Amino acid sequence: MLNTVPTPALLLDRPKFERNVARLQQRLGGLGVPLRPHMKTAKSVDILRLMAPAAITVSTLKEAEVFADAGARDILYAVGIAPGKIGRVRALRAGGVDLTVVVDSLDAASALAASVGDPVPALIEVDTDGHRAGVVPEDREQLLAIGRVLDGGPGSTLRGVMTHAGGSYGVFDEAARVQAAERERAGAVAAADTLRAAGLPCPVVSVGSTPTAHAARSLAGITEMRAGVYMFGDLVQAGIGVIGVDDIALSVLASVIGHQREKGWILVDAGWMALSRDRGTSGHRVDQGYGLVASADGVPWPDLIVTEANQEHGVLALRPGSGAALPELQVGDLVRILPNHACATAAQHDRYQVLGEDGGVEAEWPRFNGW
Amino acid sequence: MLNTVPTPALLLDRPKFERNVARLQQRLGGLGVPLRPHMKTAKSVDILRLMAPAAITVSTLKEAEVFADAGARDILYAVGIAPGKIGRVRALRAGGVDLTVVVDSLDAASALAASVGDPVPALIEVDTDGHRAGVVPEDREQLLAIGRVLDGGPGSTLRGVMTHAGGSYGVFDEAARVQAAERERAGAVAAADTLRAAGLPCPVVSVGSTPTAHAARSLAGITEMRAGVYMFGDLVQAGIGVIGVDDIALSVLASVIGHQREKGWILVDAGWMALSRDRGTSGHRVDQGYGLVASADGVPWPDLIVTEANQEHGVLALRPGSGAALPELQVGDLVRILPNHACATAAQHDRYQVLGEDGGVEAEWPRFNGW
Repeated sequence: MLNTVPTPALLLDRPKFERNVARLQQRLGGLGVPLRPHMKTAKSVDILRLMAPAAITVSTLKEAEVFADAGARDILYAVGIAPGKIGRVRALRAGGVDLTVVVDSLDAASALAASVGDPVPALIEVDTDGHRAGVVPEDREQLLAIGRVLDGGPGSTLRGVMTHAGGSYGVFDEAARVQAAERERAGAVAAADTLRAAGLPCPVVSVGSTPTAHAARSLAGITEMRAGVYMFGDLVQAGIGVIGVDDIALSVLASVIGHQREKGWILVDAGWMALSRDRGTSGHRVDQGYGLVASADGVPWPDLIVTEANQEHGVLALRPGSGAALPELQVGDLVRILPNHACATAAQHDRYQVLGEDGGVEAEWPRFNGW
Repeated sequence: MLNTVPTPALLLDRPKFERNVARLQQRLGGLGVPLRPHMKTAKSVDILRLMAPAAITVSTLKEAEVFADAGARDILYAVGIAPGKIGRVRALRAGGVDLTVVVDSLDAASALAASVGDPVPALIEVDTDGHRAGVVPEDREQLLAIGRVLDGGPGSTLRGVMTHAGGSYGVFDEAARVQAAERERAGAVAAADTLRAAGLPCPVVSVGSTPTAHAARSLAGITEMRAGVYMFGDLVQAGIGVIGVDDIALSVLASVIGHQREKGWILVDAGWMALSRDRGTSGHRVDQGYGLVASADGVPWPDLIVTEANQEHGVLALRPGSGAALPELQVGDLVRILPNHACATAAQHDRYQVLGEDGGVEAEWPRFNGW
């Protein structure tokens, strides 16, 4: 069925993708909070149109520009704004896009506030798990200093706070994920309360990560949830228990090009260029190498993983210690490789081969990268 | 000087690049063997034109097609040919390109020999270091069986043998590299001798990797050397001692977007999307994280590396145990990040910002990916 697709190729199982999108939307609907999907995973105008979200999150201004061209009108650029990028932000806003930026320091806030032009709305990034950027919620002095600068303008307005519980990608236990989600919620709400108590505006309280979006029990005080990788799913999310392997909508189609039979190796034409160098499951109980190998119709073989990836060569072998049998694969046979990290693997390709209900290719959707 | 370049951006120091190219060409000239550069590292028509090589190596048929359009007429596609790709090979050959393919099994050889159309020349891949694909030189029976099938055609001709000492990327010692180069040479020549002794043709004896190309003392019996990463250089090659850090012509320009001062972190707008997920120095004596950080004009700071990379965030910090001082970098300041693996980092970008003798941007060269 996939024999006419040149390999390696990025496959997107549309029915699984749509189920993943509907499942999280429904869950968050039940918690009364809208989802602002993070389009950094997909980087596809076709996917934007299919999802038709009221508001989106992006990781680059290129994404903001492409999705704005495609009709997006409410966009959060969720990476701390570099002063050199403010001009492009204003150009987008002048074109009718309500683009919000993020800052987490007095320096960045001051650069935005002092910049010349119509005021740009900004969220203060809050650090709720020590993972990356942001002001800790307990640092009220810093929150208020940044808030006052943004609120004072003239180049900025204060729109609220945001946080990302990135540490939740490393949480393997559902109870601990519930705690991580509550810490993310409580930290963002505490920061918002600090700003409001000082008379500063804080209409937006934005949180999110795929694991916490699936685990949160309450989102009291939160105005929006962000998540991205949930739409495709991957082995990292399956490995920590957020989804099942069967929910993974993304895979890389590869052809067998040879064997090293004494070593138990099957060589395929998908190396790190097609799979990415991501080893996100290397610390998991089950290490998936550079990806879990499935048959051409998507059924994983027991313990068959990509153990080594050169630029255009992948080595398939059984997981060390496995008692499974190596499948009989001939030169020219097709396999599918499930990715460790959907965002990283998708980024290695310029299009999706979209699979429909019958498992055949129903469309080709371009995707983009860049900044 | 680089203040007008939007970040993150891929910088190519043209003078260093040209020195790297000239140095290896000169070395191999002294050994009497022509270089067939591997263009998988560069994937740029501008770089092909600047180098103007008589013959090239590629890792994908897309590279073969793009470089053929740009005038390349002698191309080796150095990844085992999947039967489904033979049609594209013939189309290129029909267009006047002398494209050679590679096989290492009877199955692949038989598929090529039985394919319909003008004969396609093939090299038999030889495994000289157990690293990846190929027939071991000692397996004379298999070499001869494949050789006879290719020579018999009608869809194929036997053009010779090739090997790649990929294991040399992990060799830290010059004496051991000299041995690796000799093993690569001797194995390829032994396989060629086996074919010739049986009356089979073997005009081409092709070897190569960047480390062995720099280490080989004799190339007796070899007709061409292949290497790719040498043109840019990277921290893996510097870490094993093949080049110096100062020879690295490729870097990623990034902007500082924030700090976590208590943690000693500087945050930049270059994450794995700009740097790749490559951790090729993780097993080295000096682990460079996701890259070594230099000032905007390219001078590395002592012990400052990218310790963590998210999609669009990089965390700069001192190497654990370092006594160096964290440089005073403000939000908006520029840094350059030297890559672990030039091929992987370049692949994350769609263009080079080309720096001239004065360190300023003199050109923008597009690059391509895909298959």
